[in-house]
Amino acid sequence: MNNKQTLFVQMVLDAWNTHIARLNKLFESLTDEELQQQVAENRNTGVYLLGHLTAVHDGILPLLNLGEKMYPELENIFIKNPDKPMPERPSVTVLRQYWNDVNNALAAHFSKMSDDGWFLKHNAVSAEDFIKEPNRNRLNLLINRTNHAANHLGQLTFLKR
Amino acid sequence: MNNKQTLFVQMVLDAWNTHIARLNKLFESLTDEELQQQVAENRNTGVYLLGHLTAVHDGILPLLNLGEKMYPELENIFIKNPDKPMPERPSVTVLRQYWNDVNNALAAHFSKMSDDGWFLKHNAVSAEDFIKEPNRNRLNLLINRTNHAANHLGQLTFLKR
Repeated sequence: MNNKQTLFVQMVLDAWNTHIARLNKLFESLTDEELQQQVAENRNTGVYLLGHLTAVHDGILPLLNLGEKMYPELENIFIKNPDKPMPERPSVTVLRQYWNDVNNALAAHFSKMSDDGWFLKHNAVSAEDFIKEPNRNRLNLLINRTNHAANHLGQLTFLKR
Repeated sequence: MNNKQTLFVQMVLDAWNTHIARLNKLFESLTDEELQQQVAENRNTGVYLLGHLTAVHDGILPLLNLGEKMYPELENIFIKNPDKPMPERPSVTVLRQYWNDVNNALAAHFSKMSDDGWFLKHNAVSAEDFIKEPNRNRLNLLINRTNHAANHLGQLTFLKR
């Protein structure tokens, strides 16, 4: 561990936290009715993107070896399937709670992670491949998930009329 | 310099390059007419976002002490002003060229940058503040610009009907 490594982990966590804060602010500023609108004509609804982001962030838990998913049922509804009426889809109120639950659980885990721990492999890469591609580590996964969040944040801002 | 430092500079550059490649692929797949459409009702046009991203990326050159902006006139049209008809706005053909010019210039500079060089301060922070906030370095600026690109990429994908 050296100073630059510590600094770098902080930089990546700062970018992640900034995007969670921006998404929280946006979601909190939108009514349930506004969230149920499509972000653009014939595009995903805000509530689908809320569920999608929650499901993807929930998936970080097993990928980083931090535990099981909290809400595994979301994957089928919000990742494997496109935005469509599904009887098992949770209400907006429940999804808002899940979103906070998942991000709070991640924050608690991240605060305990050592700097060196971030450079360990994640669970979507084999030990063999990781030797050849040491960039496929936990920190890199968080960089990618932050960009994913930024991508959908750009779309969700369209719900502010 | 050590292996992890090299690795995390690579991770940030990989994320940047991935987003430039995704944007290039999208821009190349769209006709000039498609780019001139709004990405969503009453939102920016594709060509405005192309100019905006070009202007922001051009601004990285002086911020990282790599030289002057190549197309300083873009700032007024695509950053300081919203999307509106302006006689001095370059054509789509010209903007596509500027976009490539700026990103190619950045790539050439980045390929010569030392790992330690990425942890120097950038030019939007004073020497005094940099002592207190060493995270305000060049690599962090590139992390932020990558998230900025991801945010607008999410919007630009709506031009694919």
